Amino acid sequence: MNTDTDQSGELDELLREVSDRARPAAEDGEVADYIPALGDLDPRRFSLAATEMDGTEHTTDDADVPFPIQSISKVFALVLAMQKADQGSGVRDELWRRVGREPSGDPYNSLVQLEREQGVPRNPMINAGALLVDDVLLDHCDDARASMHALVSELAGEEVGVDEAVMQAERDTASRNRAMANLMASFGNLTHTVDEVLDLYVDQCAISMTTRQLARSVRFLANDGIDPASGRRILSSTLTRRVAAIMLTCGTYDAAGEFAFKVGLPCKSGVAGAIVALVPRRMGVCVWSPPLEPSGNSLAGRVALSELSARLNLSIF
Amino acid sequence: MNTDTDQSGELDELLREVSDRARPAAEDGEVADYIPALGDLDPRRFSLAATEMDGTEHTTDDADVPFPIQSISKVFALVLAMQKADQGSGVRDELWRRVGREPSGDPYNSLVQLEREQGVPRNPMINAGALLVDDVLLDHCDDARASMHALVSELAGEEVGVDEAVMQAERDTASRNRAMANLMASFGNLTHTVDEVLDLYVDQCAISMTTRQLARSVRFLANDGIDPASGRRILSSTLTRRVAAIMLTCGTYDAAGEFAFKVGLPCKSGVAGAIVALVPRRMGVCVWSPPLEPSGNSLAGRVALSELSARLNLSIF
Amino acid sequence: MNTDTDQSGELDELLREVSDRARPAAEDGEVADYIPALGDLDPRRFSLAATEMDGTEHTTDDADVPFPIQSISKVFALVLAMQKADQGSGVRDELWRRVGREPSGDPYNSLVQLEREQGVPRNPMINAGALLVDDVLLDHCDDARASMHALVSELAGEEVGVDEAVMQAERDTASRNRAMANLMASFGNLTHTVDEVLDLYVDQCAISMTTRQLARSVRFLANDGIDPASGRRILSSTLTRRVAAIMLTCGTYDAAGEFAFKVGLPCKSGVAGAIVALVPRRMGVCVWSPPLEPSGNSLAGRVALSELSARLNLSIF
Amino acid sequence: MNTDTDQSGELDELLREVSDRARPAAEDGEVADYIPALGDLDPRRFSLAATEMDGTEHTTDDADVPFPIQSISKVFALVLAMQKADQGSGVRDELWRRVGREPSGDPYNSLVQLEREQGVPRNPMINAGALLVDDVLLDHCDDARASMHALVSELAGEEVGVDEAVMQAERDTASRNRAMANLMASFGNLTHTVDEVLDLYVDQCAISMTTRQLARSVRFLANDGIDPASGRRILSSTLTRRVAAIMLTCGTYDAAGEFAFKVGLPCKSGVAGAIVALVPRRMGVCVWSPPLEPSGNSLAGRVALSELSARLNLSIF
Repeated sequence: MNTDTDQSGELDELLREVSDRARPAAEDGEVADYIPALGDLDPRRFSLAATEMDGTEHTTDDADVPFPIQSISKVFALVLAMQKADQGSGVRDELWRRVGREPSGDPYNSLVQLEREQGVPRNPMINAGALLVDDVLLDHCDDARASMHALVSELAGEEVGVDEAVMQAERDTASRNRAMANLMASFGNLTHTVDEVLDLYVDQCAISMTTRQLARSVRFLANDGIDPASGRRILSSTLTRRVAAIMLTCGTYDAAGEFAFKVGLPCKSGVAGAIVALVPRRMGVCVWSPPLEPSGNSLAGRVALSELSARLNLSIF
Repeated sequence: MNTDTDQSGELDELLREVSDRARPAAEDGEVADYIPALGDLDPRRFSLAATEMDGTEHTTDDADVPFPIQSISKVFALVLAMQKADQGSGVRDELWRRVGREPSGDPYNSLVQLEREQGVPRNPMINAGALLVDDVLLDHCDDARASMHALVSELAGEEVGVDEAVMQAERDTASRNRAMANLMASFGNLTHTVDEVLDLYVDQCAISMTTRQLARSVRFLANDGIDPASGRRILSSTLTRRVAAIMLTCGTYDAAGEFAFKVGLPCKSGVAGAIVALVPRRMGVCVWSPPLEPSGNSLAGRVALSELSARLNLSIF
Repeated sequence: MNTDTDQSGELDELLREVSDRARPAAEDGEVADYIPALGDLDPRRFSLAATEMDGTEHTTDDADVPFPIQSISKVFALVLAMQKADQGSGVRDELWRRVGREPSGDPYNSLVQLEREQGVPRNPMINAGALLVDDVLLDHCDDARASMHALVSELAGEEVGVDEAVMQAERDTASRNRAMANLMASFGNLTHTVDEVLDLYVDQCAISMTTRQLARSVRFLANDGIDPASGRRILSSTLTRRVAAIMLTCGTYDAAGEFAFKVGLPCKSGVAGAIVALVPRRMGVCVWSPPLEPSGNSLAGRVALSELSARLNLSIF
Repeated sequence: MNTDTDQSGELDELLREVSDRARPAAEDGEVADYIPALGDLDPRRFSLAATEMDGTEHTTDDADVPFPIQSISKVFALVLAMQKADQGSGVRDELWRRVGREPSGDPYNSLVQLEREQGVPRNPMINAGALLVDDVLLDHCDDARASMHALVSELAGEEVGVDEAVMQAERDTASRNRAMANLMASFGNLTHTVDEVLDLYVDQCAISMTTRQLARSVRFLANDGIDPASGRRILSSTLTRRVAAIMLTCGTYDAAGEFAFKVGLPCKSGVAGAIVALVPRRMGVCVWSPPLEPSGNSLAGRVALSELSARLNLSIF
């Protein structure tokens, strides 16, 4: 980032320009509609938010409109599991024996590799892997749901809640996720019941946040594991880098290569159309636009992040 | 079949010889042990039974020891569905739109093709296909479970029951089948709940029969659709041939080619170690030996049927 | 077959009726066009031919128009290999260690299973399997090409030749087959060079025959292995049945289940639009209509065989 | 990198320590043996080399022993193609229409995805993708082989040659690569003959270099596209980052996630046991140890890079 754009006003202006460039791309995407709460999302919703390490916030458009974070919650779940792993190598070994950390090359909800690889999901960013992480959390947290809410609320700097309608709808349409959980169970790679794991998963997916809150919340992953708001270490330096590595290689499913190529930042997307991105040592970013490309990532969101990365020369490569 | 072996005593003798040849092969197989009721089966159990159209029965060894028929029930479920299909083309079209009739080339419990082919199982003889058939039966039978029991009891010539311990254990270990049912549901190819379909499925798998009863029960499929015991038509001539065709191409999973090659008769196997075979216009056959080959078919059973087919020149080819 | 249709005139009439019913289906198929010699085939070409064991021939339409037999040659190649196998168990063991006999569940030219299963083709009726059989023939015949021509000419009752233009074009467009042969070679499952094997393969595919000749030529497979024209045994009784079994389970690729279901006879199709069918102990049949269904089998040909089987009750099931 | 280790002597010492830690891991790997020239490699060969932007070189062990660079050449080929792409959007569009940039999730020599995805390789770092890049080079270079040698020699700072024995052996054992090239050709995704493409490919794989030379040669990819030795721009800043992104997500095949996780640097491995790594704005690195892990990457090489990255805090995440 050039120092001259580093001044707050200039970054505001640049975010507005990037937003103007990205917004029209939404027209070629499609809003997820497997549950009404998503299908009803206005495809013209849009926001780009960037929070610097010193707390300075830059936002455009609907920065304070909440939406379900969906798969972005997989990052927070993985962070929780890694906190536990940090406390004892037993958990770490168990975690990485039960879930891989390789890109899958397949869609996020595919069961093909899961069957071929004996119920061990490729990575924690696809659905099967996130269910597995939740199963681990149920083992090692007194109240995994409460731990997740507490972590996210702390990072967001304010209490976050769950969209009950979304959660209920997710639960009712979870056939594909139930299929995955049952398949893992059939290989002995699930220690809790499918219902217990699904309950935790649909709860975390239904956490309701804004782009402003998400941009704040992921900053610690770009800050060596320390939440810049509180100075509290959330995760060790090493594990923080590893979460970021998994986000880059796996966070946008079978478009991860495309994101690395065009954006060059660790990212994680959610089906409601949000994408978070990490700019190491600089800022947390979140963009939101509901219409998706075929891999399940926000289309205008990808355009915005590519543009932002190019304009500020943010690529980590 | 040569006329000289056609005499009852000679066929008895031949079955004994075939049994003697086949029995030792069991040593190289493995008894299914995913539920105790199967794992506890004595691997030395064996029986070969053949019932001629005139009712003459030939049996060896444990012909009156009952075991759960497991996947052999898929044949009876398909027959029930085809009876409904015979009554109206709507059911027929629905059935074959929702399940295929091609060999799968994959193991009986694989989800790979099911995902690739949008939730439409390859054929009614693999688990996913049988679950689909059960879903159809729940639509078109007042009481599908009762209809199944009534049909099997009529064909067996005596009341057959369910092994409750097996049924309960099957229900408790049905993760893989639940995965399949949920995957079909995710593609909109299931009209009842996963639990309803599974309940019917585990009930039919737990039906308890002997080789003597099974040899009787499948005769109508070798007799143009008419049960020779009662003279009652169970299925039309055309549909009967089609059930037999599906048994030959799909009834022994990814060993169907091997069975066609070596046995040359329509067969269906079950995981408890039984295999039924049809000798068109001559007899129904059932062999039982619990140890299985890797595809899930009885190993000594396959040897017995190959030997029987060769000795009596029974191949339909 | 009812005795009243068994009289020659009635069978002629029935073939005409079946042809009339089948011909229009060709409109929904597509002529293979990967080489000009196939793409130039008139989609309205049609013929149905049946030759009884006593030599009586029944034909309709273009029964004396030659076309390249293409994949139907795989049957003759397998028969040659089995003749060798009959002469020594070494060849038999080698053959079935290097090629399987299971339906593939995949298209005829797929490399997916070939890679997954370490270069061992699923069966001799798909392209990879036929290339493998040719490699075996090159090992065990002094002049495999001459042996093939001699066998086919003997069975056809007259000298058959090769369509040089087709052969040359096949050789020039054999990328997919070259890919398969190289993949098998990479697993060490090819003893001759890719070029040697391809040369034999494109030669056999380009053999030019008529439906009349093909109907004659396959009779021995429905006659216990004995050519009824000469009384000469071509193959042992057991192996003959096994060739027929492979034709039924694998001869029409991923539509083999459909053919078993609707036609109920061992069949083998070729991409020029011909299909041969065996009626055990009764006759050899060949139908020809160039437009294909997606699996690569003649569309009107399938309709004709279904209709013929239904009208004469020919299903082996 | 801490400034205190930045002093040349300290870095030398650190490389020695890292080498000592990594060397024993070689015992658990396996030297590639598909050609004698590789199989004959001494498994105890080892070297770690790092070249700073100012030209300071740090090396351990066998830093001046040449070996065939094998798949590391894919990076140079991609750079050449991108140079052409930089000169005209036509080439760029053509390139990325004919090859993807997503991790494959499959082994480097798999044909499964290539068939499923209609002959379009997933990325330029797997074999099929590299063959495709070579096909593009043959189109757009007057003499692709000479261009490749010139580029590599320029970057290495001295003339590099080809190991003729390796090249000949590669050509003779290229069945798997021939299978891929033919499969692409069958989908119309190859403009030159398989032989022409293979000739270029085996030549580049047989280029013989040392770890010292390779560490020098990849520096420009960590230096914004400018070769620090000459100050000449090899590639635009944007495209340079994109090459690095592809290396990180795809350069170590189906262990790319593991490398991102543990090493956190863009890497590319070769089957002779070398791995190059980029430390943005700091240095080019190369490690060599012939024994490989199952994905085809040097085992001790991976350990060395993990250790080096951890010790100097080099991860880009």
